[in-house]
Amino acid sequence: MKNISILGSTGSIGTQALEVVSENSNALNIVGLTTNTSIDLLEKQIDTYSPRIVCVMDGDTALVLEKRLKKRGLAVDVVTGLEGLIAVATASENDLLLTAVSGMIGLQPTLAAINAGIDIALANKETLVAGGQLVMDAAAASGVSLLPVDSEHCAIFQCLMGNKHEEIDRIIITASGGPFRGYSHKQLESVTLAQALKHPNWSMGKKITIDSATLMNKGLEVIEAKWLFNLRNNQIDVVVHPQSIVHSMVEFIDHSTIAQLGLPDMALPIQIAFFYPERVANNRPALDFSQIRELTFSEPDRIAFPCLQLAYDALEIGGTMACVLNAANEIAVSRFLNQEISFLDIPRINRQVMEQHQVIVHPNLDDVLAADAWAREISNAYN
Amino acid sequence: MKNISILGSTGSIGTQALEVVSENSNALNIVGLTTNTSIDLLEKQIDTYSPRIVCVMDGDTALVLEKRLKKRGLAVDVVTGLEGLIAVATASENDLLLTAVSGMIGLQPTLAAINAGIDIALANKETLVAGGQLVMDAAAASGVSLLPVDSEHCAIFQCLMGNKHEEIDRIIITASGGPFRGYSHKQLESVTLAQALKHPNWSMGKKITIDSATLMNKGLEVIEAKWLFNLRNNQIDVVVHPQSIVHSMVEFIDHSTIAQLGLPDMALPIQIAFFYPERVANNRPALDFSQIRELTFSEPDRIAFPCLQLAYDALEIGGTMACVLNAANEIAVSRFLNQEISFLDIPRINRQVMEQHQVIVHPNLDDVLAADAWAREISNAYN
Repeated sequence: MKNISILGSTGSIGTQALEVVSENSNALNIVGLTTNTSIDLLEKQIDTYSPRIVCVMDGDTALVLEKRLKKRGLAVDVVTGLEGLIAVATASENDLLLTAVSGMIGLQPTLAAINAGIDIALANKETLVAGGQLVMDAAAASGVSLLPVDSEHCAIFQCLMGNKHEEIDRIIITASGGPFRGYSHKQLESVTLAQALKHPNWSMGKKITIDSATLMNKGLEVIEAKWLFNLRNNQIDVVVHPQSIVHSMVEFIDHSTIAQLGLPDMALPIQIAFFYPERVANNRPALDFSQIRELTFSEPDRIAFPCLQLAYDALEIGGTMACVLNAANEIAVSRFLNQEISFLDIPRINRQVMEQHQVIVHPNLDDVLAADAWAREISNAYN
Repeated sequence: MKNISILGSTGSIGTQALEVVSENSNALNIVGLTTNTSIDLLEKQIDTYSPRIVCVMDGDTALVLEKRLKKRGLAVDVVTGLEGLIAVATASENDLLLTAVSGMIGLQPTLAAINAGIDIALANKETLVAGGQLVMDAAAASGVSLLPVDSEHCAIFQCLMGNKHEEIDRIIITASGGPFRGYSHKQLESVTLAQALKHPNWSMGKKITIDSATLMNKGLEVIEAKWLFNLRNNQIDVVVHPQSIVHSMVEFIDHSTIAQLGLPDMALPIQIAFFYPERVANNRPALDFSQIRELTFSEPDRIAFPCLQLAYDALEIGGTMACVLNAANEIAVSRFLNQEISFLDIPRINRQVMEQHQVIVHPNLDDVLAADAWAREISNAYN
């Protein structure tokens, strides 16, 4: 039995992860769950998975849940805030922590779990984008595994199985290209929020859907891949592949390329992270090559979609710059979702915040948190 | 330094293998080389690679070479016939034997090398098609590695790296479809030898080029794959992929599919067999996804191309039947190359020989050789 806690159990990844737990209830056991405010859903999850501890980020909402559970005679620890999140992350029973919260709030609980010797299934991009060096150093020091929970990094992880790190020539991250693939800069000037929220292949949260439309999501994945797989910046390429069947590839020094293919379904990366190094059978549909017909590939347009290039720039500059890009972007996307700014304002604001940032080359955790807070403030102030 | 002998060094695979040896002369050393009758080329190879022993299958031609070498003061053992081939295969210096001869003549030297504890790089289809159980039993008993030297099985071999055998759901062998992809049975009635010899992607010997046109080559690969990877018959699928970029795939029990991609170049499987478990860098061109544009897939047409179905039938029947299919086909193809029979006579004759065969379920080497000889005689007699 593997004991798992999930940070962000009521979100898109969290709920899919709990489906995987249900499908494998003989092998997986839930210790802790967390939500920001969705206590109705969390209460249902408590009934189904019987966690020992749950965290509700908002203190008042936590009290509401605590009362409900007490009334029903359920003995579940209800904790709250960042401190509560860290308590769930570091629960002594945990064999594995799935970090599926969105945003910078994931960094500190993940670091705490790593320091407590708990393996990490990582679905929170910010952890590596903002804290890459810190997190990888901590993981190396405590000897824990960092298992990627997104389709691209899980694909690369699988392509690398049985191969040596020094035999990697480059990785090729595939991008669907999002709803605006093939659009010119001119055409992007007038796109709407509703259009940006229509992803062709994946059903995901709003923030990541907008990041897919700007290619910022792919840029953040490039940064994550650098840390996760210990690569040089010039070893990471992106290719547009609209069908989202090839989830990513690795080219080795002998020019053999290994690719991982599958239907777009997050259950696979979740399952692989939960069971690695074993693969387990499931009842989900397999690829049918008589249905696929064709897979196409093209270069991403870094002129029309500047966010991808900004990510490479941030990697080259190093230090706190990737953290700043991520924070600036999170605010810009949230303002776009509130219809305060236009689609093309997102890369424009990201770039302007980066240009103003004084980089700290070897940041500690406080430096990272300060750079993040600074970037959010500046990003929010731009018009 | 790895000591290698090559059976069939003047053929298509043999010459490409020697290029790989030249590119890696610091790591690979040639012990023995063999040819049927191409002694001019063999003499050049002797000058370049300084083997200790060479075999010329034809006795008279061997004498000619022996005299030439003596005249030039070169001390190379010249041996001849099957006995000579076995002497090269089992040379005590050999770390690895590349079996790149065409036809049943490869079986006995390969078995002899396996019994002598020498690892095998296998480019000779007949070894496993005709002698699958015998060869795999011998390899298991002597603990040697069987490394596939063709693009499809090498692809599967790579896709399996780092994964467990019991986690394989199925393998998917890709087929270019050959020059007659999309042709109906009716259209195949009138195709010519010249058309059949024009393979769209690969430059290979004539026999294998015709086998690609009938899909018999893919059928033989299905049979080889069964033995090489220890699969059930229903775990082996074939998909038509005209671009020959995806060389084959493995689908695992979790419905994750791993594929190996590359340009059509036999140097890669040769190199992987020579250096496994290491990958080594080379100067050959890499895949360029901005050039590929699209990869397409479709079901093979087993009605218009019955040879593929015959291979599955032979697997189901078991015992000596695959050997008989292979032998019948070798004669039929040779008669087609001599323009004695038509293209569609090849599957017709193959089927008729199979229908007449009395299967031996657990054949020994003599049974296999007898079934092979019987099938050749019958195949040759058909009109």
